[in-house]
Amino acid sequence: MTGWRTIAANKKAQQRALIPKEWTLKQADIPQKAETDVSRIPETCGLLNERELQITNSDVTELLQKLATGEWSSLSVTTAFYKRAIIAHQLTNCLTEIFIERALARASELDTILQRTGAVAGPLHGLPVSLKDQISVKGLESCMGYVSWVGNFADSNSVLTDILENAGAVIFVKTNIPQTLMVISHIIHVRIGRNYNHVFGRTSNPYNRSLTSGGSSGGEGALIAMRGSPLGVGSDIGGSIRIPAAFCGTYGLRPSYGRVPYAGCVNSLEGQDSVPSVLGPFSNSLAGIKTFLKTVIDAQPWLKDPLAVRKRWSDDEYNLADHGNGENLCFAIMWDDGIIVPHPPIIRGLEMVKKALLDAGHKVIDWKPSKHAEMHKCLGDIWAAGAADDYSAVTALVGEPVIPSMSLESEIPVVDIIDNVDTVITPSVSAYQLWQMHKKKRILREEYLQLWENTVRMTGTGRAVDAIIAPAAPYTAVPHGQNKTGQYTMVWNVLDYSTLVIPVSKVDSSIDLAKAPHVFYNEDDKTNYDIYNPVHFANAPITVQLVGRTLEEEAVIAMGEIVDTALKGVKVA
Amino acid sequence: MTGWRTIAANKKAQQRALIPKEWTLKQADIPQKAETDVSRIPETCGLLNERELQITNSDVTELLQKLATGEWSSLSVTTAFYKRAIIAHQLTNCLTEIFIERALARASELDTILQRTGAVAGPLHGLPVSLKDQISVKGLESCMGYVSWVGNFADSNSVLTDILENAGAVIFVKTNIPQTLMVISHIIHVRIGRNYNHVFGRTSNPYNRSLTSGGSSGGEGALIAMRGSPLGVGSDIGGSIRIPAAFCGTYGLRPSYGRVPYAGCVNSLEGQDSVPSVLGPFSNSLAGIKTFLKTVIDAQPWLKDPLAVRKRWSDDEYNLADHGNGENLCFAIMWDDGIIVPHPPIIRGLEMVKKALLDAGHKVIDWKPSKHAEMHKCLGDIWAAGAADDYSAVTALVGEPVIPSMSLESEIPVVDIIDNVDTVITPSVSAYQLWQMHKKKRILREEYLQLWENTVRMTGTGRAVDAIIAPAAPYTAVPHGQNKTGQYTMVWNVLDYSTLVIPVSKVDSSIDLAKAPHVFYNEDDKTNYDIYNPVHFANAPITVQLVGRTLEEEAVIAMGEIVDTALKGVKVA
Repeated sequence: MTGWRTIAANKKAQQRALIPKEWTLKQADIPQKAETDVSRIPETCGLLNERELQITNSDVTELLQKLATGEWSSLSVTTAFYKRAIIAHQLTNCLTEIFIERALARASELDTILQRTGAVAGPLHGLPVSLKDQISVKGLESCMGYVSWVGNFADSNSVLTDILENAGAVIFVKTNIPQTLMVISHIIHVRIGRNYNHVFGRTSNPYNRSLTSGGSSGGEGALIAMRGSPLGVGSDIGGSIRIPAAFCGTYGLRPSYGRVPYAGCVNSLEGQDSVPSVLGPFSNSLAGIKTFLKTVIDAQPWLKDPLAVRKRWSDDEYNLADHGNGENLCFAIMWDDGIIVPHPPIIRGLEMVKKALLDAGHKVIDWKPSKHAEMHKCLGDIWAAGAADDYSAVTALVGEPVIPSMSLESEIPVVDIIDNVDTVITPSVSAYQLWQMHKKKRILREEYLQLWENTVRMTGTGRAVDAIIAPAAPYTAVPHGQNKTGQYTMVWNVLDYSTLVIPVSKVDSSIDLAKAPHVFYNEDDKTNYDIYNPVHFANAPITVQLVGRTLEEEAVIAMGEIVDTALKGVKVA
Repeated sequence: MTGWRTIAANKKAQQRALIPKEWTLKQADIPQKAETDVSRIPETCGLLNERELQITNSDVTELLQKLATGEWSSLSVTTAFYKRAIIAHQLTNCLTEIFIERALARASELDTILQRTGAVAGPLHGLPVSLKDQISVKGLESCMGYVSWVGNFADSNSVLTDILENAGAVIFVKTNIPQTLMVISHIIHVRIGRNYNHVFGRTSNPYNRSLTSGGSSGGEGALIAMRGSPLGVGSDIGGSIRIPAAFCGTYGLRPSYGRVPYAGCVNSLEGQDSVPSVLGPFSNSLAGIKTFLKTVIDAQPWLKDPLAVRKRWSDDEYNLADHGNGENLCFAIMWDDGIIVPHPPIIRGLEMVKKALLDAGHKVIDWKPSKHAEMHKCLGDIWAAGAADDYSAVTALVGEPVIPSMSLESEIPVVDIIDNVDTVITPSVSAYQLWQMHKKKRILREEYLQLWENTVRMTGTGRAVDAIIAPAAPYTAVPHGQNKTGQYTMVWNVLDYSTLVIPVSKVDSSIDLAKAPHVFYNEDDKTNYDIYNPVHFANAPITVQLVGRTLEEEAVIAMGEIVDTALKGVKVA
């Protein structure tokens, strides 16, 4: 068997060869300085014509409307996004699978259907959609960054791929992820939110390439931010949609377990059903998020995936029937989680949202978090319960080292090396011990529900708090390798709350100055304080998470729209 | 610490002392022959007056209507059912906790509310409701048949108890269960459906006391069949609602995971979240089943229990919007599961249902089961994954032996002794091994969904089969200790299908003759064939299971009504 380094190098070379010469950036267009904002290069490099720029700068609603009337063909829309995706890839390394011919053929087929029948193939007619690498597409690889899985071509589509294609979507690229989808180091410290693997390498942040895109759906984050795709799908087990959405400044929704069908995807930690990974959308508008979710749910995924929840799309819930019809809502802001105080730009983002909501006539109170450290530990324990056996089983196939690893390749950036202290992976515990973790998790969820319900005494609306507004991380995008904590996202996975990332602003070195030290909660809090530097973080997107209840996706999107609209006032002002 | 035998004996003596003298059956009214049908004794013993008989023979709809108008006070209704429950207990040993004074005080309180306000306290105003022992009621014990837990008084109500009480119900008795809620013997053979524990002893079948009531909600089955309660709640992890409902000839619904809130109940195998136990209703009418479920769901249990599914009661689904509005349905009958051929009366029950449905204008095709043995094994493996550690942890507290046990007490009927070969309990496996079982389970569920969806080619309705009609067991109620297989119910727990038991008929020794031997699937099939004897099984209820999809409780109840109505024609004819 060929050594893993050779397999990885071959795969990467194949990928490079798939990029058409005419879509290749001139050397002069690729900035030498790592810190550069590359997000505008698609507009300035000259590879996209005016119409292609108009197409790729349009949002999902406008695209679908023009595709449905035939004003824009799917071929032209798909070509425009493909070119921009390939440009984005050359700047951020955001793609895995590239299949231009196949996607354009599919687009043409949809154009023919529209011409012949006068009707759209479905609600996503002609729309290019990008997929995180693990979402299987028949005939394509889903190696998921594992060298061992290079050459594994999918026999069939995942259920979601089928639903999207039946709805008229054009699947056109697959996007980058880290090996194992996350990096579990030891039983307490679970590292997520980076984007490196041995096959495709790492993805960078479009707004500042010295910063990470976040992970594990980091390719989606970077691609969407570059407007290389109008709608993308990622997965989230501890923040893997929300961290890249937050770091790259896009919208990103983590739906509740089973709202979006997962069947037929490749995954790590398969059978870990305690806190399951979920699929969810990335887009540059909430319309994109809503269109995705409604389309998928209207396709009755429970008839295709037994784990998909039989719950129809509810216009009633979207119209906020459970939230006073959207009038005079009461939001609660979580300024910090009691473990790590967020950096100054994050706090400024929360303040902007607070002002916007107050100006729009809503109430805003403070959220007092409880037991976030326990929830974070609980999730880490559950993942670690069988992770070592799982990763070893896969990587052992070709002798590829698990990252963090003893033998580091020279091409791995030094910042991705984790201290040796983290390299011991905890052995599996017993099923009975896992059951005890489940008991603990259930109690934590019961307590948090009670905490939320008890706010009915504080809101003045007769209801408990309608949604929580919280940071997605205690920082904006950080330098590669520095994304060391996932608790701001992971707690909502444990609780299975429906959670949406909303872009707010960007780091402004002249405004977001470092603050005087506070009384640190712990060593990690101090470390986090120490790494902040307004210059290093310049231009990084600022976002918030809007947190709703389990299986309340419709209301979360609607409340997101309220926040979004309110913010537009503040941003203009 | 007192020895476990003393604790158990004391508890049993306390229970005996709580039975009022005036509600005690005369010795002459207690039949000496084990085989006797005791179901009519409440009508003949003279302890209930005519009005009490009228009350206890009424169904839930009629009771609620008369309670709401004040025609019957809750005190009179609760008293009538309590007397009948106590009579039932003396004949079948169906109760655990008895608390007459408390229940009657609560009933009077509800009467006062109605008199004072003119309004009912809720949709269950004044209705007595029985609960399986594990459902916590503040101030009462939930020892669940574990000697170790005798004297554990609940600090608070379970969420369901709260919901029922807020709806106006009068919780009035708790009902008997087996130790551990099931009997896990070794990794493949999982014994469920018996009803014995060291504290309260075993529950017998009202229609033939030589037969078992089934378990683990055996107390509910016997009590409801004796009309000692109009509405009861049990739990089901592998058949524990449906087996006693089937053996005792009542309606019983196993809802999907999370449709009814479980929080705050006592349980065994806590943290075993792979195939969770669910709560569900028993009643003598489908109106009782529907009233329970709609009341519970309308109370928004997801705001009280984080594991309760946020899915409202859907009248649309109840009106069979997903099933052609209930016209020209197509049912599939599973005559056997390919593992054990059911006894003659079970086949006769299926034939009655088939004829009734055909007469009513519906289609009926055959169901070809697939991989039921694999599903049965999968569930057994999952339970066994940590069961030994779990049971030992509890029983070790007082040295009580786990049943099946090495040291058998003389008071344990010999038929409850299980061969020594079964006494080895498998040690826990690793969490990683449990994850592999989850993978297997997911694939089995995906395959079964596909199997179901593929029937669209056979139904002629344009839809897949609307529901499956299947046996609840390969036999009617069997002699104590002979209930050796749970696969006819367990498979639906693995699949999480919403499943309803519907009474059809009773064993008639003159009709349900033994058949000539068939080609046996295996040794168990032969053993099952051999135990059938029309005389020994005389008078045992015959039922079927109606099996629908996950989270489709509304449609399952509505289709149950269609079957029920159709059967009334056949039964009269």
